Amino acid sequence: MNHRFLFRRRVEFADTDVAGIMHFSNFFKFMEVAEHAFYRSLGFSVHPFSDGSEEGDLKVGWPRVHASADFRLPLRFEEEVEIELLIEEVRNRTVKYYFKFWKDPDLEEKRAVAATGRFTVVCVSFDADTRRMKAVALPDEWREKIVAAPEGMIPDSAAS
Amino acid sequence: MNHRFLFRRRVEFADTDVAGIMHFSNFFKFMEVAEHAFYRSLGFSVHPFSDGSEEGDLKVGWPRVHASADFRLPLRFEEEVEIELLIEEVRNRTVKYYFKFWKDPDLEEKRAVAATGRFTVVCVSFDADTRRMKAVALPDEWREKIVAAPEGMIPDSAAS
Amino acid sequence: MNHRFLFRRRVEFADTDVAGIMHFSNFFKFMEVAEHAFYRSLGFSVHPFSDGSEEGDLKVGWPRVHASADFRLPLRFEEEVEIELLIEEVRNRTVKYYFKFWKDPDLEEKRAVAATGRFTVVCVSFDADTRRMKAVALPDEWREKIVAAPEGMIPDSAAS
Amino acid sequence: MNHRFLFRRRVEFADTDVAGIMHFSNFFKFMEVAEHAFYRSLGFSVHPFSDGSEEGDLKVGWPRVHASADFRLPLRFEEEVEIELLIEEVRNRTVKYYFKFWKDPDLEEKRAVAATGRFTVVCVSFDADTRRMKAVALPDEWREKIVAAPEGMIPDSAAS
Repeated sequence: MNHRFLFRRRVEFADTDVAGIMHFSNFFKFMEVAEHAFYRSLGFSVHPFSDGSEEGDLKVGWPRVHASADFRLPLRFEEEVEIELLIEEVRNRTVKYYFKFWKDPDLEEKRAVAATGRFTVVCVSFDADTRRMKAVALPDEWREKIVAAPEGMIPDSAAS
Repeated sequence: MNHRFLFRRRVEFADTDVAGIMHFSNFFKFMEVAEHAFYRSLGFSVHPFSDGSEEGDLKVGWPRVHASADFRLPLRFEEEVEIELLIEEVRNRTVKYYFKFWKDPDLEEKRAVAATGRFTVVCVSFDADTRRMKAVALPDEWREKIVAAPEGMIPDSAAS
Repeated sequence: MNHRFLFRRRVEFADTDVAGIMHFSNFFKFMEVAEHAFYRSLGFSVHPFSDGSEEGDLKVGWPRVHASADFRLPLRFEEEVEIELLIEEVRNRTVKYYFKFWKDPDLEEKRAVAATGRFTVVCVSFDADTRRMKAVALPDEWREKIVAAPEGMIPDSAAS
Repeated sequence: MNHRFLFRRRVEFADTDVAGIMHFSNFFKFMEVAEHAFYRSLGFSVHPFSDGSEEGDLKVGWPRVHASADFRLPLRFEEEVEIELLIEEVRNRTVKYYFKFWKDPDLEEKRAVAATGRFTVVCVSFDADTRRMKAVALPDEWREKIVAAPEGMIPDSAAS
């Protein structure tokens, strides 16, 4: 049972903006990239559609219904940030994630939280014909592998 | 005194993702684009730095310390969405915005809120040499032009 | 018969990078946005798939097989650029476009070409089941509306 | 002396578009990411500005004056692509790069070129006050480390 995942990504040139720092919208992209890497680490793909070649696919997608972030320290071009993913809640059709962005992850004396964030994602199936999404229960294979992080690891959501 | 601003933007091809809808991170970009259009409507630029040619500039920037969004309906390629910006709070050094994304803005019977969002932005000045940011009081010219929206226009923030 | 189209777009904050100018990859996005606005001006949508609600759609897409650009002058945050689209060539299954980015489009004495670019796009149909693309002849409705620009309007392609 | 560099990157969800494949503009971003990884492999940073903390920096930037790509095969969400960078030409103030995107890089029987591309980048210095760029000769430390790829490794540029 998993409740925590670590992922590293380097800030690319196109992630920055004229203020000299990573554009805030890219924190959300990084959170999603960490989430998908977490899925892969569990043995799942997150392809939202089949292209005919992935017979065994779960055929579910994970659109978000909520996303938030609080920014404390800027990230700059080329720095490597460590994204800590924690599972905040697992429900029948939704999962909540909490994220911490660790700046200078390898420097014990400088290591600091640059940002925190939250996602609420819904498990959906796709209708191949209409391409519409419908909320469905999490697949069993999925529920068997994830669990909410122990109390105390994630601050109260009212704060963000 | 202004507390509300409307802005329209079309979903571009590069804004979409393989799920067939606008990628959620672009809602945040659209919120920022509406915010900057609001600034321009007040007569202000938001260039974070001077390039030597803008003598009269306020020389302040507006990084966000908080961003959140709740997604209800997908936006698709080519559709035009109306972004309604409301000022939620004006403080000495910060401004809070609330956003509504109006899907099908011109069809009375279909018009619906696709998403809502929030920003908390801080007024900062830049040190030209170090390019570091420092929180400063909102410029007077700015404070004289904006005011929080009347009570009841914005739902309680605990909800998002 | 159309061979030229003008489109304006403002450089958004997220389009810029730490060098203080629009990231070069966004010139390509702007070219595509102008191309799609051109299609709409002809009465065509470019939705690559049907979602069940667009019965009359042509059901074709226009992936690019070639894209190039030459950059002369930087574009900065908030400036409005005029994108001039010219049709370079119309073939059975492909269309070639040539683009000019006009900086300071309204200032006669400053107006200058910031960049030029080229696209070669292929008309494809999508198989609804496999989502694979197949090159097909341009729809007749399409061919009847477009034509290559007169000689002399577009420089020789060997130059770019 | 280096003339070749390999770099891998996974197609992220936000890199895709509604056509179900990586948006073409992201091929250009990937080329730049490979270029910057190449610089780092040589011991150089490509920070375009000093933030006061990088005393030994070369203080040069590498804007592109030309970028082009030819697209043969689509890339899909989550697939890992290998980007092969080759130096096409080294001049006093410019460097030309040639790129190959290797799809299915680890499957000998499927491995194929999904796209090729080219950059011409100019070495510039930045004026700290005006933030204007000026073309300058490549730093000696740089010239001593790179060299054009042997003839025959890169196809004639007239083709792209």
